[in-house]
Amino acid sequence: MKKIQLFAFLFLALITNAQTLISPSKQIQLGFELDSNGKPTYSVKYKNKSVVQSSHLGLRLKDGTDFTTGFEVENSRQTTFDETWQPVLGEQSTVRNHYNELSISLKQKSSSKKMNIIFRVFDEGVAFRYEFPKQPDLNYFIISDELSEFHLTGNHKTFWIPGDFDSQEYAYNETLLSEIDIQKLNLNNGIGLKSISGKSVVQSPLMMKSTDGIYINIFEAAVVNYPVMHLDLDVNTFTLTSKLVPNAIGDKAYLRTPSVTPWRTIMISNDARDIVSSKMIFNLNEPSKIKDVSWIKPMKYVGVWWEMHVGKSTWDYAGSQNAQNAADGQLKPTGKHGATTENTKRYIDFAAKHGFDGVLVEGWNVGWEDWFGNWKEDVFDFTTPYPDFNLKEVNDYAKSKGIKMIMHHETSGSVANYERHLDRAMNLMKEYGYPAVKTGYVGRIIPRGEFHDGQTMVNHYNYVAQRMAENKLMVNSHESSRPTGYNRTYPNYIAAEAARGNEFNAWSNGNPPMHETILPFTRLLGGPMDYTPGIFEIKMNVYDKSKKEQVHTTLAKQLALYVTMYSPLQMAADLPENYEKYLDAFQFIKDVPVDWQESKYLEAEPGDYLTVVRKDKNSERWFLGAITDENTRQTEIKLDFLSPNKKYEATIYQDGSDADWEKNPKSYVIKTIQVNSKSKIKLHLAKGGGTAISFKPIN
Amino acid sequence: MKKIQLFAFLFLALITNAQTLISPSKQIQLGFELDSNGKPTYSVKYKNKSVVQSSHLGLRLKDGTDFTTGFEVENSRQTTFDETWQPVLGEQSTVRNHYNELSISLKQKSSSKKMNIIFRVFDEGVAFRYEFPKQPDLNYFIISDELSEFHLTGNHKTFWIPGDFDSQEYAYNETLLSEIDIQKLNLNNGIGLKSISGKSVVQSPLMMKSTDGIYINIFEAAVVNYPVMHLDLDVNTFTLTSKLVPNAIGDKAYLRTPSVTPWRTIMISNDARDIVSSKMIFNLNEPSKIKDVSWIKPMKYVGVWWEMHVGKSTWDYAGSQNAQNAADGQLKPTGKHGATTENTKRYIDFAAKHGFDGVLVEGWNVGWEDWFGNWKEDVFDFTTPYPDFNLKEVNDYAKSKGIKMIMHHETSGSVANYERHLDRAMNLMKEYGYPAVKTGYVGRIIPRGEFHDGQTMVNHYNYVAQRMAENKLMVNSHESSRPTGYNRTYPNYIAAEAARGNEFNAWSNGNPPMHETILPFTRLLGGPMDYTPGIFEIKMNVYDKSKKEQVHTTLAKQLALYVTMYSPLQMAADLPENYEKYLDAFQFIKDVPVDWQESKYLEAEPGDYLTVVRKDKNSERWFLGAITDENTRQTEIKLDFLSPNKKYEATIYQDGSDADWEKNPKSYVIKTIQVNSKSKIKLHLAKGGGTAISFKPIN
Repeated sequence: MKKIQLFAFLFLALITNAQTLISPSKQIQLGFELDSNGKPTYSVKYKNKSVVQSSHLGLRLKDGTDFTTGFEVENSRQTTFDETWQPVLGEQSTVRNHYNELSISLKQKSSSKKMNIIFRVFDEGVAFRYEFPKQPDLNYFIISDELSEFHLTGNHKTFWIPGDFDSQEYAYNETLLSEIDIQKLNLNNGIGLKSISGKSVVQSPLMMKSTDGIYINIFEAAVVNYPVMHLDLDVNTFTLTSKLVPNAIGDKAYLRTPSVTPWRTIMISNDARDIVSSKMIFNLNEPSKIKDVSWIKPMKYVGVWWEMHVGKSTWDYAGSQNAQNAADGQLKPTGKHGATTENTKRYIDFAAKHGFDGVLVEGWNVGWEDWFGNWKEDVFDFTTPYPDFNLKEVNDYAKSKGIKMIMHHETSGSVANYERHLDRAMNLMKEYGYPAVKTGYVGRIIPRGEFHDGQTMVNHYNYVAQRMAENKLMVNSHESSRPTGYNRTYPNYIAAEAARGNEFNAWSNGNPPMHETILPFTRLLGGPMDYTPGIFEIKMNVYDKSKKEQVHTTLAKQLALYVTMYSPLQMAADLPENYEKYLDAFQFIKDVPVDWQESKYLEAEPGDYLTVVRKDKNSERWFLGAITDENTRQTEIKLDFLSPNKKYEATIYQDGSDADWEKNPKSYVIKTIQVNSKSKIKLHLAKGGGTAISFKPIN
Repeated sequence: MKKIQLFAFLFLALITNAQTLISPSKQIQLGFELDSNGKPTYSVKYKNKSVVQSSHLGLRLKDGTDFTTGFEVENSRQTTFDETWQPVLGEQSTVRNHYNELSISLKQKSSSKKMNIIFRVFDEGVAFRYEFPKQPDLNYFIISDELSEFHLTGNHKTFWIPGDFDSQEYAYNETLLSEIDIQKLNLNNGIGLKSISGKSVVQSPLMMKSTDGIYINIFEAAVVNYPVMHLDLDVNTFTLTSKLVPNAIGDKAYLRTPSVTPWRTIMISNDARDIVSSKMIFNLNEPSKIKDVSWIKPMKYVGVWWEMHVGKSTWDYAGSQNAQNAADGQLKPTGKHGATTENTKRYIDFAAKHGFDGVLVEGWNVGWEDWFGNWKEDVFDFTTPYPDFNLKEVNDYAKSKGIKMIMHHETSGSVANYERHLDRAMNLMKEYGYPAVKTGYVGRIIPRGEFHDGQTMVNHYNYVAQRMAENKLMVNSHESSRPTGYNRTYPNYIAAEAARGNEFNAWSNGNPPMHETILPFTRLLGGPMDYTPGIFEIKMNVYDKSKKEQVHTTLAKQLALYVTMYSPLQMAADLPENYEKYLDAFQFIKDVPVDWQESKYLEAEPGDYLTVVRKDKNSERWFLGAITDENTRQTEIKLDFLSPNKKYEATIYQDGSDADWEKNPKSYVIKTIQVNSKSKIKLHLAKGGGTAISFKPIN
């Protein structure tokens, strides 16, 4: 009876081209099928309940080839993959990559053209991509549209930001799918350049929760030589369709066979911690192409930076955005320039005194007078310092103090100009021993007509990482497209911004208290974020009584962020003089490492709260960070992650009992207690609050 | 009475804002006037006859500013300028720059914005440009249109090529203005990429002759940080209007005050020799920015090049335009690769034996298999040779023979890729001692959406010249925008193609016999052309009996071209084995220098004939070149350019009595006679023929 059933199943499978792939845990089930017109479709179930209904797949090429229909299955193959790999820097020292794969070779009857669709199912989700194999009738081609659908099953709660081809620096909206409407947003949010693409277009990663408590996340991995995928929502059917970012003339991607698209990913779990801790995006990327990684190191740094954001000094030397001054060839200093030799030495002293690795200096180089808003092409040359910044003196001083300098390459979006200067810029870095650079892309892109999220720009960010790797330099890119795991392939690409960072609190309506509770479920899935936490002087009115801006967290939450916002590159972002006022709290930032042996996500609810604990890669110390949104939070944490039979000293940095992100953000309390693996700790988080704990073994 | 007349004149001038400027010779008169709406206009007279009727001037900016109207004259100023300067390489060792200038400062009443119009009148023509001075209300701005008119006075005979944003590689049409219609052209002319811009749009330089024998040429000078100007003809009024080449998103130029546009030039004379010998375009450019010019040298060269054009070998190593071969990572040679170590050494030997300076090698580097027609971005890296081309061995061999190697950087139009690699490419050149590079831009431009003639590309060609100058390297650019005198500012930019060169004869309907009689009146006005003359084996059927292509001149005319087509970089373009068959004729090419003390244009009729004689910069030798179109020509040349009281040996290379470009092109005769400054020589030119003469003093 069994044999006949099997035969019947195979027979049916052949006729309907229907295939099934399940996760190693068996909880996720992917179905693939060609419909009667030869259109490829897929669907996804979680624990036998539909999560993604029958959804179409395919693309259209500029020459008229329609890769959405008219296919037949030539063959298919299922395989299993299970390996562990070691990230150079990471949340954990080993990562398991375990999935079942279904590879389907399709042939279009009318054109004889071929396309493969590859599915991988992990325990925490599904991924698929298109492949274009070498073939006689397809060589160089242009993609005019990708039409990957995600037909969802209900009006899920969704955390979203509007589809914008040039920026991800939005605060998240928390609404039902049906309420997504960009026209109803308040777009007065501090973002300088917006390129909103449509009423119902949102960005990925997109985080959702169904009414029956299933967490769903749509994203992509390994965006290489391809534009970024945004998502176009059909509110009537709850179907999202991929919307690729166009180039200057409306084309989406230029490819040649053999080639592959990025992976489209759907993470699914009833436990939010599975999503926030997932390494799926990295697992879907190519292994490291760098052989000798000894020069790739984590860094904690301070910088000549926040003082400009709060208005104490300026990036420019001779007047902000007054091109007249820059254009007449004679820069007359305003006296407000931040990046001077003297001021930089002050930060170097501070870094050396408190055990930091590096100092970033922004505004060191000529060009800031008219850098923004003019769409200026020859904006910076990346090698000429201002008259009051002595490259040699600064770098000699840093070396004498054992401090590394972090270079700054703000491109102003003038990417053609940056690429022209890249070799000379890297030569300067190597001449002075800069191990790392922060790049920036603030402004409209040149080549004109391109977007930050188009294929040309994606290729540029990756190209910079590759050229930097050849030269043993690390990169931290700001205003680039959000990372999708490429730091596995180029581990020198140690961090990026590519989301709304802490800086927005200095000069705009800022980041709401829930902001940091959603970023790990979205932005951080694809790679570390240089969020620049650690602001102690929470309200900006200390700099100018008329300022109303503030950071929207308590001081204790700023400490917790060093644990909840994973990055191997972390800034102590505030001014040295502010840290000196709160040295006891600052101790946590000094102690916290940024490279980890192990990480456990203890509690997680997107948009509400997050509690993470991590073990230092290089010692037995553990660090816990707990944060909440605009609500207070009480919770109890079991310390069973600690080694048994060991005693630990736990230093707890928590909100004061009267703390409140808005009314009393700097109220904090520090306690030290002895604990062991059987202990439990009660946490009390204020509105917009947090708790940071360091655990040190007692010998 | 005189005083009252003067006063009345000044009074009238103030009211009408009318101004007049005349040439030093007084033969050309420019009038400027604001009409009653404040629209700036100009007109030009030659010997009191109108050549350009009242024509509008102005521009429109993207922000809506209308710079064509509503002006008033704030002030105006007339000055005179007279100096001589020495070109590093040139047709003559000194150039006189003598003009009268009228500078008019305009202010727009409604907007308070300012614009200046500067006129210069030389003995051979008029030039004008716009200037945007530094001012409070105009900083960064975008030009959406320039509306400079040239309202001509009649239905002139015109030599024209269609307005094409990507190519000037057209044979000239000779028609009346009223007959200009791009839709009537046969465009099957061998040009791979065309971007024709309109039914009545033609390119500049535009050469015309009125029915009363006045020669008029419209062109531009100093195209720097601005797009190329094409000309839109209104056939009803014989008015040409400037049409700027757009960028990827339709904008024309991005400028910031203070800035200037290129000069729009109108040459006028009743003697065609004044036009063809004019140095006005160079005089309108900025003086040389290079201090040490000792490394800038003229070059005569041969090259691994023509053999590919005639099909004897290929640029590619592993198959022409078969991307499959290139893509699979393993290049399988076809055996037809031209640029091998052995073949190159053969050319080096030939160059050394016959006293040439250099050898060009095309196809030396990986990438040619799929370089054309695929709009491929990562097409070349400019540093990786093919397996059968040993960079070190070739360069060591060349050095041992006293020969310089000329580098080749074909970009395939993938300019972003070239700029990324430029430093590495130049480093390779310097490592091996290449003094010069031929660059190429065959194909659709990347950044995608840009045109060869747009501002972005103009800036690129100039940028390459500047970077090369920093590295003491010379540049010869092919398929770039036609030069407009920039080699005065960057004399290392020694030549360009940027017009239909000799190569078109190898594989298309070729260049008609009149082609070389028009190029000096058009293309060469702005800078030297690497025309690659010297083809002796005129008909291509010697390579393959089925080939119908041929060079459209006699062999003797190919010799004359070394004199009539001025360039400090000249190729003996044919195969060594072909020269070895005609060594007596080849002697002229070996003898002719390429850098001159003095040049005299003895006879000239655009489209018909040209006779030039030049004196070597470094000796007392003179060289004469005479060419004709499809008609035979008899003429008599007085040798009064020779030094008096000296005897010369004249070696005359002329068409055989039965020579004919089509029927018997290789028939030639060489005679040697004694002459002096009182002698006359009768020249007999065959159809498509020429005569070349070298004059050597006899001691």
